[in-house]
Parts: sequence; C-alpha cells; structure tokens
Amino acid sequence: MNVEFINPFLSSLLNVLSTMAHTELKPGKPKIKKDEVACGDVSGLIGMVGPQTKGSFSITFDESLALTIMERMLGERPDSINEEVTDMVGEITNMVTGGAKNLLGEKGYDFDMATPIVVSGKGHTITHKSEGAKILMPFTSDAGNANIEVSFDKL
Amino acid sequence: MNVEFINPFLSSLLNVLSTMAHTELKPGKPKIKKDEVACGDVSGLIGMVGPQTKGSFSITFDESLALTIMERMLGERPDSINEEVTDMVGEITNMVTGGAKNLLGEKGYDFDMATPIVVSGKGHTITHKSEGAKILMPFTSDAGNANIEVSFDKL
Repeated sequence: MNVEFINPFLSSLLNVLSTMAHTELKPGKPKIKKDEVACGDVSGLIGMVGPQTKGSFSITFDESLALTIMERMLGERPDSINEEVTDMVGEITNMVTGGAKNLLGEKGYDFDMATPIVVSGKGHTITHKSEGAKILMPFTSDAGNANIEVSFDKL
Repeated sequence: MNVEFINPFLSSLLNVLSTMAHTELKPGKPKIKKDEVACGDVSGLIGMVGPQTKGSFSITFDESLALTIMERMLGERPDSINEEVTDMVGEITNMVTGGAKNLLGEKGYDFDMATPIVVSGKGHTITHKSEGAKILMPFTSDAGNANIEVSFDKL
C-alpha cells in the first residue's frame, strides 16, 4: 500500500470538519505504522470491499475534540460521550470514507463501504489486521487530537 | 433484520472456539439491541458488503476469557492483552464471519468481508451504526464472558 492512498481520506476529513464544524485540523506526518498505536476516546471504524482490494479505515478522537465538534455543530456541549456523540462520529466516518471513495474511484480504485461501528472508551487502541501496510496520520487542533488510519490488502 | 441472521454467527463461533481452544461458550438469549451496550476489554470488528445488504459484526471478550483462549491454544498465558492476543482476536473474527458467510451463502445471502479491526481497552463499548436492527447475543463460559453483535441494513 502506497502512502498516496491516505491523501483522499486526509482531504475528505479536512473538508468534512471545516464544513460541518468550523474546525481546522492540522495534519502531521503520515507514518507507516509498525509498533505505533493510535490511542483515543471515541473512534469510528468502517470496512471497505472492492474488486481489487479490501481494507479498513478508522478515525479516533480525543474526548475534548469530539465534544467540541458537537458544540460547534449544535451549539451545545455534551457532558460526556453520549449516543449523540457516537452518532456524529459514525456520520463523520461515513462522510470521510464516502469522500475518499469518490476521489479513489476517479483513479480507478473502486470499493463499497460497510456500515460504520463506533467504539467508546477512555484511551482505547485500534489495530487494523490486514495483510497490507497500515498508514497512520495524526492531526492536531485547538480542541484536541485526532488520528486516521487506513489499511488495504494488496495495494 | 431477522433474529435468524444471528444463528450462523452463533454456530460458527461455538465451532471455532471449541475446535481451536477447547472452550465451550454458553449462549444466552439474543436481544434486539436498543439501549443495551456490550462492554468488554478486547473486541474484533469486521465490515460486510453484499449485493443485497451491508453490515457489521463484532465480538467482544472479557480480558480473562481472551487470555484463557490464548493459554488453551498456545499453552502459555500472556500477562495482558498484547499483540499476540489482538492477532488471535482478529483471526477469530475472520473465522467466525467466514463460517457465517458460508452458512448465509447457502440461504442466498451473499456478502464479502472487509479486513478485521481489533480494539483494545478496559471496558470499552461498541455501537453498530446501521439503519437495520442490531442483534446482540451474550455468552458465558468458565473463563469469562463474550458478546457478539450483528447488524445488517435492509434485511
């Protein structure tokens, strides 16, 4: 898997968060993940299946960033990661992956998306178990950190 | 989504764990999940995409059960949820979903599997964000509890 495959997810995420929540994320350096583990408080995960490949995408937020995104979208800040927050994280996961799907489709890489799953729990870690490389991309913002991770078999 | 769709996952899981790890799980009552949340320490998740539907599957283990399964498979008990344990949970996720895919395929419900993702973290919770019902099935064993959850859109 080429680092290039992270870019459609990166640009889709920046676009979704600035449009929906007026939140600017600052991308860090993408890494081919070996021992490194993204750690966060609420994550959205989704599977991808296509004729050439299959894989998975995840986005992990610090609690502070997830709550701030809710506040900027709805005008009210939840006290904790409740069902509204996990719905929002599931929706962001769908939108980011959908945006990346369009961009990758233009390059001839087609896939279909499964339905998203949201994980909630202080300081959980996520490991993508595909045969391909895992690419991790960290983000910082005024309200906390996020990470995205993408893995495709056979790319 | 019909409760019947949980059965192929249930029988596949019982078969995988008794064959691989000589561990008998005792199924509880399946529930259409509303507010109920499965909570555990290590989980395997996978997306499914087919012509008629898409969805997601998850299996969540108590730490004690995950470590016991490792011990029964390898003869040695890890101190904590390490990379070997998450590999094993990813593998179980693949095998259970693969078994259910075969059984559902015989009934005319085809899907392809994405690659598995493993989540590790004390007491995390998982929410499947599909439009269909979520069916949760609890299991007990001599070494701790597990839960599986299946959700398909449009079934």
